[in-house]
Order: sequence, then C-alpha cells, then structure tokens
Amino acid sequence: MKMRRSERIVAVTKILTDQPYKLISLNYFTERFNAAKSTISEDLSIIKKVFSVEKMGKIETVSGAAGGVRFIPDKGVKDIQNVIYELCEYLSDSTRILPGGYLYMTDLIFNPALMDKVGEIFATKFSDLGAEYIITMETKGIPIALMAARALNLPLVSIRRSSRVTEGSVVSINYVTGSSRKIQQMSLSRRALPEGSKVIIIDDFMKAGGTAKGMLDLMGEFKAEVLDLGVLVETAQPTDKLVEDYTSLVVLENIDDFKEEIIVRPSGWVTNLK
Amino acid sequence: MKMRRSERIVAVTKILTDQPYKLISLNYFTERFNAAKSTISEDLSIIKKVFSVEKMGKIETVSGAAGGVRFIPDKGVKDIQNVIYELCEYLSDSTRILPGGYLYMTDLIFNPALMDKVGEIFATKFSDLGAEYIITMETKGIPIALMAARALNLPLVSIRRSSRVTEGSVVSINYVTGSSRKIQQMSLSRRALPEGSKVIIIDDFMKAGGTAKGMLDLMGEFKAEVLDLGVLVETAQPTDKLVEDYTSLVVLENIDDFKEEIIVRPSGWVTNLK
Repeated sequence: MKMRRSERIVAVTKILTDQPYKLISLNYFTERFNAAKSTISEDLSIIKKVFSVEKMGKIETVSGAAGGVRFIPDKGVKDIQNVIYELCEYLSDSTRILPGGYLYMTDLIFNPALMDKVGEIFATKFSDLGAEYIITMETKGIPIALMAARALNLPLVSIRRSSRVTEGSVVSINYVTGSSRKIQQMSLSRRALPEGSKVIIIDDFMKAGGTAKGMLDLMGEFKAEVLDLGVLVETAQPTDKLVEDYTSLVVLENIDDFKEEIIVRPSGWVTNLK
Repeated sequence: MKMRRSERIVAVTKILTDQPYKLISLNYFTERFNAAKSTISEDLSIIKKVFSVEKMGKIETVSGAAGGVRFIPDKGVKDIQNVIYELCEYLSDSTRILPGGYLYMTDLIFNPALMDKVGEIFATKFSDLGAEYIITMETKGIPIALMAARALNLPLVSIRRSSRVTEGSVVSINYVTGSSRKIQQMSLSRRALPEGSKVIIIDDFMKAGGTAKGMLDLMGEFKAEVLDLGVLVETAQPTDKLVEDYTSLVVLENIDDFKEEIIVRPSGWVTNLK
C-alpha cells in the first residue's frame, strides 16, 4: 500500500521500536512502503527529532553498505528517577516484611511493565560497553535480566543453582553466601556461553555479595570478561561487599521487624544522574 | 512543544505500543501535546488504520468517562506461522541432541527477541479470556510467560520447585512426573496469588503432562480458575497426556540419537490458523 507520510511514519516507528538495537536497512523500508530513499530518510529524521525532544530513546543511523537505522532505548534522567522513586515507594510498604526480617519483592520482580522499565534503565547504563551476553542467576534475576537483554538485543544466559541439569557438560563451582556463610553450588552448561565472551551480570539482590562473587568466579571458568555488574536492590549493611564494582538502583537501609518499618532509597547512581 | 501531525503521531504511537493493554485517556494526549481532542482523535484513527492494514496489532477505543485508548498486540496469521516455522528450523538442528536423547533449547528460551514474539503469539491466542494472572513454573517457563504477561499487561506468578522459599506461608504439593514417574514437589507462596483468581498457565515443555497436572492441582489449592494452558513445545509421545485442554505451538515428533535427527513441526493450532 502506498502511504502518506503521517501513515508511513506510524509503521516505521513501530518497526524500529519493536526491535531495539537491531539494524534495519533503508532498503527494507523503501521496499515495504514503496517509497524513495529520500522520503524514508525524511521520515527517519522526523522520528529522530521527536524521540530526542520527547526523551523516548535514540534513533541511530549507521552509514555504509551494511548500514541502516536502529532504535536504542535510552531513558532520560527524569524518567529513570521517577521509576526508581516509584519502586522505592512500593518497597517501603510495611506489609512486605516477612518473618525473619526478609523483604517480599517477588511480586514486583514478576511485574512485566515495571521490569520492562528497570530493564531499560540497565540498558541505558550499560549501552556503550560492547557486551555480547547478559548473565543472571535463576530464579528472581531472570525477569530483570531478560528485560535488560531485550532492550540491548543480547542473548541471556541464566546460571542455575543445581547441577542436575540435562544440558550436556556443565561447569559447577561452590561458593559461600556472604551473609549466612552457607556453602552453595552454581552451575552453567558449557554450551551456554562461548569461551572469552564479553558479559554483563544483572541480578535482583545483593547483601554481602557472595553470590555475585561466585558468579564472577564462574565467569572466570569460561574466560569471560565481565564488563559490569548491575543489581536491582543492595542492602546498606554490610558496607564491605565481596565485590567492588557494581551499580545498584535501590539501597535497602533497614528493615525494622519490631517497628514494622522498611527504609529504602534510590542509590547514589540514580540520585547523581544529570 | 507544539507539534505537527507527522511529529505528534510518532510520539503517540510510541506511547501506546510501549504499554500493551494499558488504557490511556485522551486527556493525557491533549495535555501532553497541547492539542484539541478532535486532533488527537484524528491521529488515533490514522494509527488504527495503519496498524490494521500492516497487521501490527489493534488500537482499541473505550468510550465513557473512564475510557481511553489502548494498544493490543495481535499477531497476524502469517506472522505467527513465520515465527513458528523459524523456531522449528532452529529446533531441528541436530547439534541440539543431548546425551540421553534430550533436546537442548535453553538458548532459544533465553533469546529475548524470539521469546518476545512467542509471548505475543500466546497473548493473541489468550487475549479474550479475561485472565488476571499468568502462571508459570521456574526456571525455563519464566522467559516465555514473562513476555506473554508483558503483552497482556498481566502480573506473572512463578511456581517454585523448592519449598525452602523465604516468602511467608507457602502451599506445597507433591506430584508425579508423567514420564519418569518421580515424585517431585512444587510450591507457591500464599501471598503470590489471591484466592479465586482467573489464570492462564504458560510453560516451556510438556511430555506426559505430569508437571502441568501438578500445576492444575496447585491452582486448585488457591481456588483459581484456570482458563487455558499454553506450552511452547509438546512431545508427540505419549499421545495420552495427563491434561486435556492445552495449546502447544510446536510438536516434537522424534529425536533419533543414532541417526542424529530431530523431527519437529508446528502444532495443529498453528497450521490451522486462518
């Protein structure tokens, strides 16, 4: 169908935003919409301008024979801060205190609309690193990491807590949880990750960092280069974590079982964004 | 900023498609873009027409005081069949045969772009049922179910294989896997799912249906109404499954360890679509 600009531009916007980071050739658009290259280029510059003004992400043009255009999710500062402030408000609801002083956050982690936004925040933070894989730990790391992987157009690899995995040869390591000092095991199938890959680790929660340290060790077994580590919520205590470089979005200051009070705040990375 | 139609329509398209099923009031658009209601209505009817012609989903207008407009992912027949044929091609790669005659599909299940499409297929199939929750089983059910939940704008609830869950009071049941006749346990936190909810179950794999039967039983403990059950891959054998009503997308006919051959095909539901 031959379309007018206001019609064609709707379809082009949808196609671009449906596939973050995927390079789409101009030819694809000229053929699909039976339009001249110059016409499509004008469409794209309008979309680019609107996305920039409305802070809806970036439209990037890559020139050359293998070139094309792609959509890069890129959340603005205000948008990031609003999402995290909203998340902190949800988290500070005192009915989330579980016996033993744990914080119930499973419902938030399995809320797709919220995790979509959190994934885009991590994608914004980690966009320029040249990662090839996103790594996480089952079970609760998966929704966040999957949404980040979607926004970065990267495959996700999920480490498992069990070695009874029917996935061919498996690399397992033992690790010690930093807070409760229990010895645990984590495993990853050899074929899940090529040796020497560039990876970003994303997980839901960090207390002392024992699990994160284990994941770094396991990545070492795969000769992977860990470019960065993102966690949704870290606890303020202990201040000395077993890993050094990471980015958290939320800091859990305290859970007071007795006063029924949860104190959370956006991380320094979130509040210092400019 | 005051925009021209071709500019404003880009932003309206992005806002709608970012939040599937979410009802957005016309006032939101008139205020954000400083435009008259009639202008926004014209924008929306252009978007509606383009989405319909290009088979990009539906734009639905809900009238009345609490009304508004929303985007409903709705994949066309061709699109669904292309995704599933592509998936079958990936799956029939003989290097996917694991010792013991298992099929390696973890990489596909953790491929966000592919699971995004699969999730939209389930969302298209289950769109009119009035479900309140999507239910799945950790670990490999999560990516598919999360993407379906995203497309339906519903919360996801993940059943766990362990009862050592720090999530308050937990309901656990024993079940027997249909193929290997092993007794296993699955658990769900009481607070994860309100009693009497309407749910759809989505999982990655079904052989004899023992796990699916267990999930139905567990839903019974929550007095949930199971509206439908979707699985990505079912095996052709045994033909008698422990559950009756379900929709699969792919049928695994046979894995021949010796000839190194995997035979998969789109399910009857996929090929019979009109």
